[in-house]
Amino acid sequence: MQVRGAPLIGATAAYGLALALGRDSSDSNLEEARALLLATRPTAVNLRWALDRVRAKVAPLAPAAREEAAWSEADAIAAEDVAANRALGEHGLRLLEALASRSRDPVQVLTHCNAGALATLAWGTATAPIYLAQARGIPVHVWVSETRPRLQGARLTAWELREHRVPHTLIVDAAGAALMRQHRVDIVLVGADRVTRNGDVCNKIGTYEKALAARDNAIPMYAAVPSATFDWTLADGADVPIEERDAGEVLRPSSGDSIAPAGTEVANPAFDVTPGRLLTGLITERGVCAADAAALAALFPEHAR
Amino acid sequence: MQVRGAPLIGATAAYGLALALGRDSSDSNLEEARALLLATRPTAVNLRWALDRVRAKVAPLAPAAREEAAWSEADAIAAEDVAANRALGEHGLRLLEALASRSRDPVQVLTHCNAGALATLAWGTATAPIYLAQARGIPVHVWVSETRPRLQGARLTAWELREHRVPHTLIVDAAGAALMRQHRVDIVLVGADRVTRNGDVCNKIGTYEKALAARDNAIPMYAAVPSATFDWTLADGADVPIEERDAGEVLRPSSGDSIAPAGTEVANPAFDVTPGRLLTGLITERGVCAADAAALAALFPEHAR
Repeated sequence: MQVRGAPLIGATAAYGLALALGRDSSDSNLEEARALLLATRPTAVNLRWALDRVRAKVAPLAPAAREEAAWSEADAIAAEDVAANRALGEHGLRLLEALASRSRDPVQVLTHCNAGALATLAWGTATAPIYLAQARGIPVHVWVSETRPRLQGARLTAWELREHRVPHTLIVDAAGAALMRQHRVDIVLVGADRVTRNGDVCNKIGTYEKALAARDNAIPMYAAVPSATFDWTLADGADVPIEERDAGEVLRPSSGDSIAPAGTEVANPAFDVTPGRLLTGLITERGVCAADAAALAALFPEHAR
Repeated sequence: MQVRGAPLIGATAAYGLALALGRDSSDSNLEEARALLLATRPTAVNLRWALDRVRAKVAPLAPAAREEAAWSEADAIAAEDVAANRALGEHGLRLLEALASRSRDPVQVLTHCNAGALATLAWGTATAPIYLAQARGIPVHVWVSETRPRLQGARLTAWELREHRVPHTLIVDAAGAALMRQHRVDIVLVGADRVTRNGDVCNKIGTYEKALAARDNAIPMYAAVPSATFDWTLADGADVPIEERDAGEVLRPSSGDSIAPAGTEVANPAFDVTPGRLLTGLITERGVCAADAAALAALFPEHAR
């Protein structure tokens, strides 16, 4: 976890293979180093993509030529990451511009985890449109979901946005859906660790419920995805391996110090409202009933109007 | 926050009014103490309900008779809470029995926050069916959502379930929806702080997204609600006042010690899968497209099959 973020994992692995070939450029070491690097993280597809790309480039070469070719290919991967994020940032910027044209208020973006510059070579993915908007004078405010258990939102995204002077507010993960219901979010932007052929997006735990909440409130939600993050070998997301991480991450969220940069703004609503239509029913001491006015009036006739 | 949980807040406030009347049973002190207690928490309707019930009982009496009448009414409120939870527990138990009859595996319950005995006088609300099932030999396993920022799931529900020897696993809040998609949850049981006339349920932040996920996966979800928790004066949940709490709760989740009892089991999946159908689209360096196979094949024809 010294390196995280699908695009950065891919580029770093490519450089790792170049380093390994500098020590020993034999076929066996190429395969061994590739396997070792591939085993570091199961979910982000960029890792396999980058390793296979470097291997395909260097394997046909004489061992003596491999190291230099590997460095060159890793450089290409890194440069392409920057260009891809810049390009998708421009596409995303148009979405923010359209939202900004409807109101003088800042465009309210919600993001989850860190799909920022710290997860890529530059620009980030979900953050690229935000940074471009900021640079072009389009007012943006970002709701930063803290992203338990490792708190990448609180620790990384909040730090990045502060460095870029983008106004932002930290929330607990569970608060995102409630903000959407309160019409306080205009658009949801997230990154991805792997996108399958049908468009299923594998991303940080909690992304799914952001999508449910966005749909329920007719709020647009996009995943910002450079093409290295697509897994064309999988038909849908059901077959994506999901990393199960250490219990200690959940049990010990911090050393007691603040989990975000000093001065980070926080919103902390303690409850939300679940519409009755989403519930199967209510269990009361008089029995179980649907969570709607008619069923409640029938069960509690003394309160019926 | 020495007292939390809607039913316990109500009963404690009733006893608080009795204590205040023991010091000074005048009309003015009755009103002053009621106002002071009412201002402690804005969201749980049981608070106002219990205070108004005690006031209605004692206000017509001579000041000398008020203290004893208040203690007696508070005792009645407490006894009724125990009885209501026991009764709704039996109704909920039948739901768990029906699920248990379909399989030999434990019934998988997901709960959020603490709607347990620590939130009530006894039994709890969402936990009452669970404790009754445990007592009657129906195997149950509970997924405990940690409930950031105050971690009532990790600190209270995990502790309660451990005391009752109910098998359970702690998860971050964002993991609940992913577990539902993986068919690892049979039923969602939560409590409520206030339920309006149309069945809207105001409950701990994060309940809404549990409901979205339950609906999306055809998993039954119930709020366990004693009648003291209904607010018959509100037509729907839009008018429920939502408590906004201190930023420090989000920023400093713990002192660095474990946030749950020693030995608590943890599941810690690091990612989830968001179906493309829930997304408005994907932003790629080639443009924005729908998150489905046809749109992706059109945008990336070299990968089309």
